[in-house]
Amino acid sequence: MMNKPSAVPGFRLSGVACGIKPDGALDLALVIADSPCAMAAVYTQNRVQAAPVEISRAHRAGGLAQAILVNSGNANACTGQVGFDACMLSLSTLAQKLGCPESMIQVASTGVIGVPLPIAPLLEGLPAAVAAAGRQQQQVDDFSKAICTTDRFPKGAAVCVDGYSISVFAKGAGMIAPNMATMLAYALTDAPVHGADLQALWKRCVDSSFNAVMVDGDTSTNDTAVLLAGGQGEALSGKGLERFEAALREACQQAAVQIVEDGEGARCVVEITVSGAPNDDAAQRVARTIALSPLCKTAFFGADPNWGRIVAAAGRAGVEFDAQKIRLSLSGDDQVIALFDQGVPLGFDKAQAQILMRNKRFAFHLELRTGSSEARIWTCDLGHNYVTLNAEYTT
Amino acid sequence: MMNKPSAVPGFRLSGVACGIKPDGALDLALVIADSPCAMAAVYTQNRVQAAPVEISRAHRAGGLAQAILVNSGNANACTGQVGFDACMLSLSTLAQKLGCPESMIQVASTGVIGVPLPIAPLLEGLPAAVAAAGRQQQQVDDFSKAICTTDRFPKGAAVCVDGYSISVFAKGAGMIAPNMATMLAYALTDAPVHGADLQALWKRCVDSSFNAVMVDGDTSTNDTAVLLAGGQGEALSGKGLERFEAALREACQQAAVQIVEDGEGARCVVEITVSGAPNDDAAQRVARTIALSPLCKTAFFGADPNWGRIVAAAGRAGVEFDAQKIRLSLSGDDQVIALFDQGVPLGFDKAQAQILMRNKRFAFHLELRTGSSEARIWTCDLGHNYVTLNAEYTT
Repeated sequence: MMNKPSAVPGFRLSGVACGIKPDGALDLALVIADSPCAMAAVYTQNRVQAAPVEISRAHRAGGLAQAILVNSGNANACTGQVGFDACMLSLSTLAQKLGCPESMIQVASTGVIGVPLPIAPLLEGLPAAVAAAGRQQQQVDDFSKAICTTDRFPKGAAVCVDGYSISVFAKGAGMIAPNMATMLAYALTDAPVHGADLQALWKRCVDSSFNAVMVDGDTSTNDTAVLLAGGQGEALSGKGLERFEAALREACQQAAVQIVEDGEGARCVVEITVSGAPNDDAAQRVARTIALSPLCKTAFFGADPNWGRIVAAAGRAGVEFDAQKIRLSLSGDDQVIALFDQGVPLGFDKAQAQILMRNKRFAFHLELRTGSSEARIWTCDLGHNYVTLNAEYTT
Repeated sequence: MMNKPSAVPGFRLSGVACGIKPDGALDLALVIADSPCAMAAVYTQNRVQAAPVEISRAHRAGGLAQAILVNSGNANACTGQVGFDACMLSLSTLAQKLGCPESMIQVASTGVIGVPLPIAPLLEGLPAAVAAAGRQQQQVDDFSKAICTTDRFPKGAAVCVDGYSISVFAKGAGMIAPNMATMLAYALTDAPVHGADLQALWKRCVDSSFNAVMVDGDTSTNDTAVLLAGGQGEALSGKGLERFEAALREACQQAAVQIVEDGEGARCVVEITVSGAPNDDAAQRVARTIALSPLCKTAFFGADPNWGRIVAAAGRAGVEFDAQKIRLSLSGDDQVIALFDQGVPLGFDKAQAQILMRNKRFAFHLELRTGSSEARIWTCDLGHNYVTLNAEYTT
């Protein structure tokens, strides 16, 4: 287990309650960098995007950022020009207070969709958020909490590599997926990574972590993942850069799996590995199709080793493979149980498989045996709590 | 409401119990045509296909069929060479009894996957099925029942057009979707439709009916839809053929919607129409993404007019559209409630929308306003019974 996110040299953090959340919980989160940082960011691919996403995407072009502002409790999505104006107003107010250009601020909102953002409490809360920003663990923890919505616990991880710190913060309650499961992720580091490849590096890390956790396939209007690297001096390269990327990826994966673990609904986290695929895209398609199949996910919930559903889900992924060559196995608790091989079911011990699947973590491995590409996805089960929590969210 | 399937001149039908289903229910179904019929067929696109699908697909090449043999209770899928041999043995036995080539028989199996087909009871049941075949309503009804698995009721429709009969039979329990929701559909007619376009005509009918109902996106190893047209003489053409196709499509749509209605889990059937799409494929993608979204489907279950989930699902369908131009409305009970238009939510009466969504049938219409293509899909809600019924199916 990794450590929870901690302070990173060069950054001050805060989380305050400004009154957007009706219960008075923390709902305004702020990161202030001591000086402009190299930044990389990926945003939702959804055609319907919240105002803060459109604005932050435009700001990404500069490649530098000095602050991150997040409000929770309202997504400021599907709110038209009024929502856009509200977001710009919060940005200009903060930029003035910090003395930095608006384009150096990344902004995000998460919460209910289609309700106008209450801009007055947000503007009133900004001075308190700036004043509260600091480097203590309490302030770091407040930031973690202030970006949450229906999360049962704040998410993140901290790791050190070659003397540099990386803290990753995330929010999103997988199984609950309230407003399209808005996922926010922020990585802060004092490592000097500011080359032209930073965006590509961050994209790779996000693809193998936050983009590799599947809950229900619904993507948000607000999904955002931002990396701020504050380290000055000569940029990491070669082996040093590789070690940094590996550490960052590992921290992101830890945080991402916490999203799957969260949510009243999720009983278990299931790792789906597809290997031997003809290419990376094919491996991803098969793994994602299994990870999203309601029939597979309800079988996970019931601890039912119904391998036929997994094989059939793989078969409809739109990928060419020979059903007479594939192999499927279940693993967990240091055991591996082969279920299906070369077109025929194997005579496995069903009771043993059920015991294994009653754990909170287990894995399926599907070998297509037609190539050398591999994909790994983390998903969760589909149980009664998912239905209960999602059936009446706005009403 | 249409009539249930009835006898069609030129065909004898039967349904008997041969002992594959442990409870002694009807499990062997047979259609015998008086003479070779023109046939068209579509089969599952799944890469993993049951033996009877592979064999029937090969038989389609001849374009003629004289019999249909279906067993329920066992899918004969993922059973390797043994399953293939069992299927061939049942075919050769029936072909000998009927005095027709094996290639003129369409065969299907539906039921549990990965368990060897009990061939002995099937072979013993064949003579009884042949002997029982007839033209009475009771025999038609027995056929309807014998193709069922977890279906709560037999499905189908009958329609007459220009003096010709069409009966459509279907099985598949949408919401339960036990073994990948195997769907079988058979259409019998005495109309003279036997031109080279028959396969294309049947494909169009299936695409707008059986392929337009979405339950959980899991397709079967065994899905099959076959049309037998026994009418001799000059083939229908022009307006006559158009009227025939319209009648056949209507009967298929009626049968297909019954699949969605069935299943302990389904509370409601929801029609999703996407119009104004740039092309047919785009319209289909958007409609299907909405129809399969767990967040949308749980909202349907909860009668929750959570339009944000529908807009967001549309947004992730991979189709280009302008979120500032789209319009979404809910309809049912002869009412239409506009929910979202040109980027902003409308102030609709939520209580009224909830009342409308508590019905067993309602519809959403999403207008993309970027083109002229339209798609219509029928889906159902995702509720607690879906989870209960699917969590422990094999165990």
